[in-house]
Amino acid sequence: MTGPARLDAQMAFLTEACRLKSVTRATTLCDASRPENSAEHSWHLALYALVLGEHAPGDVDIARVIKMLLLHDLVEIDAGDNPIYGQVDHAAVAASEQEAADRIFGLLPADQATDLRALWDEFEAAQTPDAQFAKALDRFQPPNQNLASGGISWLEHDATLDKVETRVGTPIARGAPALWDWVAPRIRAWFAAR
Amino acid sequence: MTGPARLDAQMAFLTEACRLKSVTRATTLCDASRPENSAEHSWHLALYALVLGEHAPGDVDIARVIKMLLLHDLVEIDAGDNPIYGQVDHAAVAASEQEAADRIFGLLPADQATDLRALWDEFEAAQTPDAQFAKALDRFQPPNQNLASGGISWLEHDATLDKVETRVGTPIARGAPALWDWVAPRIRAWFAAR
Repeated sequence: MTGPARLDAQMAFLTEACRLKSVTRATTLCDASRPENSAEHSWHLALYALVLGEHAPGDVDIARVIKMLLLHDLVEIDAGDNPIYGQVDHAAVAASEQEAADRIFGLLPADQATDLRALWDEFEAAQTPDAQFAKALDRFQPPNQNLASGGISWLEHDATLDKVETRVGTPIARGAPALWDWVAPRIRAWFAAR
Repeated sequence: MTGPARLDAQMAFLTEACRLKSVTRATTLCDASRPENSAEHSWHLALYALVLGEHAPGDVDIARVIKMLLLHDLVEIDAGDNPIYGQVDHAAVAASEQEAADRIFGLLPADQATDLRALWDEFEAAQTPDAQFAKALDRFQPPNQNLASGGISWLEHDATLDKVETRVGTPIARGAPALWDWVAPRIRAWFAAR
């Protein structure tokens, strides 16, 4: 695909991406004024990566991590957001996200669809240092917003310290141990003071 | 600044950045459901850069452009957003944005504050190819959302084709002529059909 048809396809993808601004998450903004949406969440995570890259363990390519984080939630346009403390059918969610990825990345010219889909697949698989750092940031940002907002999202979802340590702590400790060391005592103090 | 104090400062900056999600812009979402905020706008622009990098004239470092776009609106936390078709005191806006940049980037450890402030200064000055491409995208995204939403923002702000060609067309044509060639006939057709 070349010339104007190529740009037509890229713009169809970018206009479709606009819909991510209407997908809401379980976490609120830091001031608790409203639920966060997945587009502004993705921006915030990319900024986290830009600022916190030095805390990645070993060799991480921050520019690639930022690209992954810009793309990581696009599938939610079709598949919706799944709160981390909810009970979900993980196989059904994965299947619905794969179908969403086929459709949404498929709007792009084929070479770009392949490249960006590969970045999203790498993020989902969470096996490379780049993807593990990106996943760690995706788990690290919500508890910080919860702590800033007085823990509203934890209260609303009946989160327990045990659940937070497992679902949030494990991926953060794997992909960014220094960030887990920083936030873990703050999370424990919040649950202890409940 | 090293160790825990360094991460404390980085997290203070990232928590402050959350407030950009509450700064609203004149442009609506593509479906016209509500005004866009500056955080989700910044995400969308970074995605534009990731997808449209090949249309930059000459040698542009897309990873740097993405970083600029992630940062470019942070000053609006203090200075607010200035609609492109409004009448503003440009000197007063520039002074208020400089003050905002001092305060907000100043939350970071000094070395990072210097680095990220330099990227923002480069974006504002719009003299390098990276900054001119970033500025072009910042002007290219709103008319596309306007076209998708039926031109609501143009109607609300009494925009004329002449104003759009000057305020939007000039920076797009300078930083990304291929993108102006693509969108200009669409904009002219919308105004012709009014």
